[in-house]
Amino acid sequence: MSNPETRNTPSTGQLASPYPARHARLAEELQRAGMDALVLNPGPTLTYLTGLHFHLMERPVVAIFTPGQPTVIVLPELETGKLEGLPYAVESFSYGEDLQSWDAAFHAAALAAHLDGKRVGVEPLRLRLIELRFLEAAAGQASFVSAEPEIAALRMRKDATEIAAMQQAVEIAQQALQATLPAVRVGMTERELASELSYQLLRAGAQPEFPFPPIVSAGPNAANPHAVPGERPLQPGDLLVIDWGAMYDDYCSDLTRTFAIGEVDAEWQRIAAVVREANEAGRAACRPGIPAGDVDKAARAVIEAAGYGDYFIHRTGHGLGMESHEAPYMRSGNPQILEPGMTFTVEPGIYIAGQNGVRIEDNVAITISGAQTLSNLPRELITLG
Amino acid sequence: MSNPETRNTPSTGQLASPYPARHARLAEELQRAGMDALVLNPGPTLTYLTGLHFHLMERPVVAIFTPGQPTVIVLPELETGKLEGLPYAVESFSYGEDLQSWDAAFHAAALAAHLDGKRVGVEPLRLRLIELRFLEAAAGQASFVSAEPEIAALRMRKDATEIAAMQQAVEIAQQALQATLPAVRVGMTERELASELSYQLLRAGAQPEFPFPPIVSAGPNAANPHAVPGERPLQPGDLLVIDWGAMYDDYCSDLTRTFAIGEVDAEWQRIAAVVREANEAGRAACRPGIPAGDVDKAARAVIEAAGYGDYFIHRTGHGLGMESHEAPYMRSGNPQILEPGMTFTVEPGIYIAGQNGVRIEDNVAITISGAQTLSNLPRELITLG
Repeated sequence: MSNPETRNTPSTGQLASPYPARHARLAEELQRAGMDALVLNPGPTLTYLTGLHFHLMERPVVAIFTPGQPTVIVLPELETGKLEGLPYAVESFSYGEDLQSWDAAFHAAALAAHLDGKRVGVEPLRLRLIELRFLEAAAGQASFVSAEPEIAALRMRKDATEIAAMQQAVEIAQQALQATLPAVRVGMTERELASELSYQLLRAGAQPEFPFPPIVSAGPNAANPHAVPGERPLQPGDLLVIDWGAMYDDYCSDLTRTFAIGEVDAEWQRIAAVVREANEAGRAACRPGIPAGDVDKAARAVIEAAGYGDYFIHRTGHGLGMESHEAPYMRSGNPQILEPGMTFTVEPGIYIAGQNGVRIEDNVAITISGAQTLSNLPRELITLG
Repeated sequence: MSNPETRNTPSTGQLASPYPARHARLAEELQRAGMDALVLNPGPTLTYLTGLHFHLMERPVVAIFTPGQPTVIVLPELETGKLEGLPYAVESFSYGEDLQSWDAAFHAAALAAHLDGKRVGVEPLRLRLIELRFLEAAAGQASFVSAEPEIAALRMRKDATEIAAMQQAVEIAQQALQATLPAVRVGMTERELASELSYQLLRAGAQPEFPFPPIVSAGPNAANPHAVPGERPLQPGDLLVIDWGAMYDDYCSDLTRTFAIGEVDAEWQRIAAVVREANEAGRAACRPGIPAGDVDKAARAVIEAAGYGDYFIHRTGHGLGMESHEAPYMRSGNPQILEPGMTFTVEPGIYIAGQNGVRIEDNVAITISGAQTLSNLPRELITLG
């Protein structure tokens, strides 16, 4: 293709633009952290604050947010059409094909944003050397520091529009799985089933970029929580773990259900029941005011009491939103207090190497008084094939 | 999902390991550029030099290549299993969950690789602030400089195994399109067709990550070379542009064909013939020893002579390999001399805003005496629906 596809319009789905309020909340976070500005390159946080989508490519794009000032954007000339009609003030500096014009655009932008000598927040997991070097050349006395905690604070509590998008991402994923299950039969490979599920996700309205390729794993492969779908055909006695998700309006879902292929032995039926109980206990623990670690503790206690503690080899869940892994993390001892609007997975599992595995994963949103589970497909061990 | 899936094994597909020879060629490039070492984070170049796959996530991974020394790798403990049985010497430094152990691992690695005070090449489009800060802390007197030209020189000339993988990626893409075309009919939306094509790509054996989501655009949307598939139903008189690709064994294909939906007016039939002729002229120009810019010139001359020069709004092609856009670029005036093993797209197009568009894209490999076109689907304007 001549260039990657781009989407030109800010996310809609709400009547009023959310961006001015987000800029105001960002200003508060920056002030609290003693930072003068935030500089972002393309990624979910940039989209969260601007509604704009850019690919992270060979031509650098940065947005500079300074409290009370227009958003300053450096971008290639061929992308400037994206800035038309934005619901907030923007000052843009575009560059052409010659590298001198890149330097000039960064210098003019740094000047307009008064960056020089300032303490500037950035995303260390996203900002690249190419953007950093242009910024350093343009604002020699600025210091660039991690704004990771401030950005997590900004994005962690989802508003009603964001939760509605996640709910729709869950609905699409659930509809896709239901359309896929009738095709499951003994002899089918994991990869064939993953392909069918991917197709049904697209048919159900998922964005073409998935949060991750579906994981379809059965029997010994299901004992690996990071399995990749392979060529082994489904066999009677397998447990079949399907871990899949969709994106809708830039928000993710991430679900797992486990099925029995034909007759499964008694111990694995019992394990499946234990994991289901752990999932329920984890979700039941979710409410505002408790540490995230308590959700892990609640799910883990069920599995430990059943004697399978050593086989629950990962944390109970992770935050979910515009990214498939984000804060808050449901890991042992995490003191992060849950607050209304926080969204995350609850996904206990039991894995016995060489045998089978079970995982049951739901998506949860903390409410004012408790928690809402966004996903509702049955969690019982259903027999297929 | 609990964590992203990973693939544990180096790419196979060749009898002998290609990595020692690649390390030797890297040593030559570094010496020529006056660099003492190369530091990479996860991405295609890391995979090219090690066969290893890591996701670019919250836990940093770097590999340090120093001529004549074992490859030094810093990675999380939970990833160390990937280093077993590698066909080259590795010295690894792993870290656990506490951040002090991250610092310690980077310090030990920098010491083992003698990084301090050295001139170290990096990839500015890939290295992030998180890796840079750990490296700077571990090797305070080192300077980190762009090794982009050296890496392009290293990867640009593909060997027979790489070209075989690309050929297979082309075959998969072609097979998928042929399985999709019978479904095309008036009234179908672009998005429905893109979903069907994605499904057929997976069925044909494509890796679950595509080089890019298929572009399916018709009528006015086809006039935008960066179109995103939308909800507009196909209509008689539309030109239908399909731009799609697959990955196989980490190598990409990237093709475009244009179809007529029902009867298309005479001017657009003529335009389609002009683009086909431009594609043929561009491919016919490909041979070792000429500047890449000459391929653009040959394709562009046909379109200009036909009076549509103003409507061919992008370069004629881009390099293709482990990335869907890489060197060499077939753009006007590019002096890069083509050499055997270089692989790229030839994809002229004509776009008239509000009306229609045509693009015809093939994948080409330069040989010792000329060039081989890897793709062979018909280029005539075939009528569908």
